[in-house]
Amino acid sequence: GLRWLTISALVGSIAGTASAWFLISLNAVTGFREAHAAIIWLLPVAGLVVGALYHFWAGPAEQGNNLLIDAIHDPVQRVPLRMAPLVYVGTMITHLFGGSAGREGTALQMSASLAHPLVRLFKMNAHDKRLLLIAAISAGFGSVFGTPLAGAIFALEVFLVGSVRYDAIFPAFAAGILANYVGHLWHAPHTVYRVGAIPPLDANAFVWAMAAGLIFGIVAWLFSHGMHRLQRTFKVMVPHAVMRPVVGGLIVAVAVYFVGTRYIGLGVPVIEQAFAMQAAPHEFVLKIAFTILTLAAGFKGGEVTPLFFIGAVLGSALSIFMPLPVGLLAAMGFVAVFAGATNTPLACTVMAMELFGADAGVYAAIACVIAFLSSGKATIYTKQQRA
Amino acid sequence: GLRWLTISALVGSIAGTASAWFLISLNAVTGFREAHAAIIWLLPVAGLVVGALYHFWAGPAEQGNNLLIDAIHDPVQRVPLRMAPLVYVGTMITHLFGGSAGREGTALQMSASLAHPLVRLFKMNAHDKRLLLIAAISAGFGSVFGTPLAGAIFALEVFLVGSVRYDAIFPAFAAGILANYVGHLWHAPHTVYRVGAIPPLDANAFVWAMAAGLIFGIVAWLFSHGMHRLQRTFKVMVPHAVMRPVVGGLIVAVAVYFVGTRYIGLGVPVIEQAFAMQAAPHEFVLKIAFTILTLAAGFKGGEVTPLFFIGAVLGSALSIFMPLPVGLLAAMGFVAVFAGATNTPLACTVMAMELFGADAGVYAAIACVIAFLSSGKATIYTKQQRA
Repeated sequence: GLRWLTISALVGSIAGTASAWFLISLNAVTGFREAHAAIIWLLPVAGLVVGALYHFWAGPAEQGNNLLIDAIHDPVQRVPLRMAPLVYVGTMITHLFGGSAGREGTALQMSASLAHPLVRLFKMNAHDKRLLLIAAISAGFGSVFGTPLAGAIFALEVFLVGSVRYDAIFPAFAAGILANYVGHLWHAPHTVYRVGAIPPLDANAFVWAMAAGLIFGIVAWLFSHGMHRLQRTFKVMVPHAVMRPVVGGLIVAVAVYFVGTRYIGLGVPVIEQAFAMQAAPHEFVLKIAFTILTLAAGFKGGEVTPLFFIGAVLGSALSIFMPLPVGLLAAMGFVAVFAGATNTPLACTVMAMELFGADAGVYAAIACVIAFLSSGKATIYTKQQRA
Repeated sequence: GLRWLTISALVGSIAGTASAWFLISLNAVTGFREAHAAIIWLLPVAGLVVGALYHFWAGPAEQGNNLLIDAIHDPVQRVPLRMAPLVYVGTMITHLFGGSAGREGTALQMSASLAHPLVRLFKMNAHDKRLLLIAAISAGFGSVFGTPLAGAIFALEVFLVGSVRYDAIFPAFAAGILANYVGHLWHAPHTVYRVGAIPPLDANAFVWAMAAGLIFGIVAWLFSHGMHRLQRTFKVMVPHAVMRPVVGGLIVAVAVYFVGTRYIGLGVPVIEQAFAMQAAPHEFVLKIAFTILTLAAGFKGGEVTPLFFIGAVLGSALSIFMPLPVGLLAAMGFVAVFAGATNTPLACTVMAMELFGADAGVYAAIACVIAFLSSGKATIYTKQQRA
């Protein structure tokens, strides 16, 4: 009752505030990087700092989102308070010097670690702590993307693949909705995507949407699989953890020298462009390469905005041979590659409705469900369990 | 893979066609009744026919939606083919002579019983049969209300309270989306509700939305509880099943003589009115009374459109003292009383987005989650199990 309303309001305020300031500083840092392209050559040095920070101070916080998912299954796990400043600083450095990364990891980890002291404040048992973590994930996700309902469903859906349970339904929705509201009070900057006209679904469109979903699912599998593989390779090739981001940063910097800056950072302008005009068919491959290089090397941020990027440019490119509008295909890819890589088809369908309007829902649902099924057991969150 | 795509397409075609013709004939019957008000005096005779039909021919089909839910849990249960013509004729008679009832029961039962022969055609085992029933429920619901995503989530959500499992996610979404498409091909008539402007959520609106959700949940409890109670009372007072609709029909006819025809039939015009202007605070009580009388007596149709009516006029009336727009409160009540009475908060939230636009989602989510929690274990589907 009132206890969980209070807790949800606190979690919402904490997460909404943290996400808003994070988004504002992320914009500042991205602007600075774009104005100073040569800063990319310092990425190996930045990697040394991030690597050292995490190696010497992080402890369990190094596991990032997987620690949060693990702590839901096993509430004995503590989410250390230092996780918030570490991931914030790590993400800022990553984006300032031109890594290719996201922001949801940062938002989720800040939200969960800053909300964690409530465990003691409200004398929570293991069950309550579980609900608190789910509320914090919802609040972090909802406020960083401006999609509170998707945040709530994501938090209920992410830790157990193939199942949603409702014991946390109130904290998840209340914290997500309030966090997004608090974010608005801070004028958190959210991107508005323009999908354009969405044709009514017919049998033809249904089949094409399924085909697109299949491709999105395969690419989601490629991303998860590639990420895990490269992480292993890095560990073998560069045994010392502190040196990994240095090597990774150097490779990214050299790649940027040849390919340009289009595939680093969040890439929001490229995502917006993908909705308006056909992307080239190789763009998603380059973004996958830059992102798994950046993250497998140990830089910070998250995978979700890169997954949005990969899906949007891939969907946009599918309009070369698929008879669906480019904006709609970009929107479907935006959510469906993410759905496939995280096993959260319901959250992603609702996210499409929140970001692109209710009419996008049917197309998004087909693409997300098929991507979820066709990506197999691949997941970027290795601590997910299966129902 | 292709097997379930074929099955889903067949279920979608069957359900979409059945729902479309059902809606078209329902409109005709409702038009006739409205033009001939005196027909209400024949409701007791109509009751005799419905009562006799079900008593002598229905067998297990008499259990209606509960049989479908039961068959999902225990696939040994057969869904007889005669269920479709029985519920169709029973619903037509109920609406022609002025009972207060819905249509989703009819759509679900027609869909499930007409799809049931696919069990033999595709040599299905128990697990497959379960998926088929879920697909049929999704298809019936999605096509009768024009809300395919809500239909799919409803079908995944309804049989097990407090949990959604994804083993049926593909058949549910595919059949629901295709059924709605087939319905459109038949020009199935769906009502478009005009909610008007939706203000951005703030802390004040959040608290009012919670308060509204609490009231919706209590009313959902009242409806379920009143229905079960009146059913038991009827069984004691009128021991012979065939006579129950006769007595019930007589009471309804006399009540219509005093109160008028506003609370019988589907009541779609009253629902539309509730979105546009404040309803009186007693209207939801009268609709509850007329509906539980009609259905507990043994007339056919379903509970959902009456629940939409009850929620919409109740929400509309809440604008007397709640500082939210009347259209928004009507929309919240429309989905939230239903969510409370059937324990399907996610389906109802998505339904609100499909019917009223994505902006209604946050308000609907708060109202539906709170109504789900505050209605307790009350449910109109007694065969629901708890996760």
